[in-house]
Amino acid sequence: MKKHDKKQIPQRVVSRLAMYFRVLSQLDAAGVERISSRELGEMMSITPSQIRQDLSYFGEFGQQGYGYRVKYLYEEICKILGLKEQHTMILIGVGNLGRAIASYTNFRNRGFYLIAAFDVREEIIGKRFNDLVIKPMHELGSFLDENKVDIAVLTVPASQAQEIANRLVEKGIKGIWNFAPIKLEVPEGVVVEHVHISDSLYSLSFRLREKTT
Amino acid sequence: MKKHDKKQIPQRVVSRLAMYFRVLSQLDAAGVERISSRELGEMMSITPSQIRQDLSYFGEFGQQGYGYRVKYLYEEICKILGLKEQHTMILIGVGNLGRAIASYTNFRNRGFYLIAAFDVREEIIGKRFNDLVIKPMHELGSFLDENKVDIAVLTVPASQAQEIANRLVEKGIKGIWNFAPIKLEVPEGVVVEHVHISDSLYSLSFRLREKTT
Repeated sequence: MKKHDKKQIPQRVVSRLAMYFRVLSQLDAAGVERISSRELGEMMSITPSQIRQDLSYFGEFGQQGYGYRVKYLYEEICKILGLKEQHTMILIGVGNLGRAIASYTNFRNRGFYLIAAFDVREEIIGKRFNDLVIKPMHELGSFLDENKVDIAVLTVPASQAQEIANRLVEKGIKGIWNFAPIKLEVPEGVVVEHVHISDSLYSLSFRLREKTT
Repeated sequence: MKKHDKKQIPQRVVSRLAMYFRVLSQLDAAGVERISSRELGEMMSITPSQIRQDLSYFGEFGQQGYGYRVKYLYEEICKILGLKEQHTMILIGVGNLGRAIASYTNFRNRGFYLIAAFDVREEIIGKRFNDLVIKPMHELGSFLDENKVDIAVLTVPASQAQEIANRLVEKGIKGIWNFAPIKLEVPEGVVVEHVHISDSLYSLSFRLREKTT
């Protein structure tokens, strides 16, 4: 794999990597062995040249006239995305959304392990949830002192998210997967991925309107 | 507003419209009156020329040397996204994810009204959920015969999603907001927005790896 200057990889390319991963994983599961950039582009609604340009950040994967070997490209994209490594995660906020996300077993299959869950609500603290016992928020600091945590999943109300993010950052957390509808301010070196669930609803609204007007 | 050939608007532009909407709504709430495409670009991590190009699909919104009037652009993007209209929605699958999505009150503020919720599980059918009584799935068809539904929110297991989508399409549903981890096959004229929650986790994984290698 060609070395690349990682600083230069634009967010839109990173976003598409997950899409490549998804599509290639489906193709591989379906037993498809090779695919042209044209076919791959059609599946992803992007141009073949966009695909070649995206992948060129990471190396040379295709062959003129042959296309891509699905399994190889899939494995390489897994590596690029860090999905060959294990990540420990904690869940903060065990409401409906937190439970939904934590129950999504695919994450574990991809190497993301939930090792603790925290909440402020007395009535659920101490209860079992998946294989975990829900911990009180005041134990967050000591837990982070004693355990290596890669990613904190934030499914708390917007009003509490920034304060919790500050505590996480103080304790050295480098990755926050934020579902709270608020932009978090974090120092450089901390990665926040903000999930904007409504964005896709608005796209849907646009597409529906486009059809009827 | 300039007329545009709606068929030509690429998905990536549509996806960014929701982002414009989000950022402009924050700016407007913060009392910002005007913004340059450079500043807007910085907030969204895209180039000013990309912004101008995106918006040019819909009309002329900025002024050379002045930038954009925040409130005006915000209102226009609301219109473009169809957020000035009301949409009726039904929820299919009242599990954790379904509950989380239905509880997100912001949708109602944007004109998306949940008018019914369906599930197959006997133990929750008939129970109240938000302002609704959970209906059994076998009432779905008759409900759709009697009510105008714009969008079905699909929060069911992957194994059931396609069959339910088929029933929805048969009854004339034109918009499906799909959270089931499966690609739905629908006829032309039906819009599916598939929410891939894991994509952002994989981006996060990539960014974390980028920092440490």
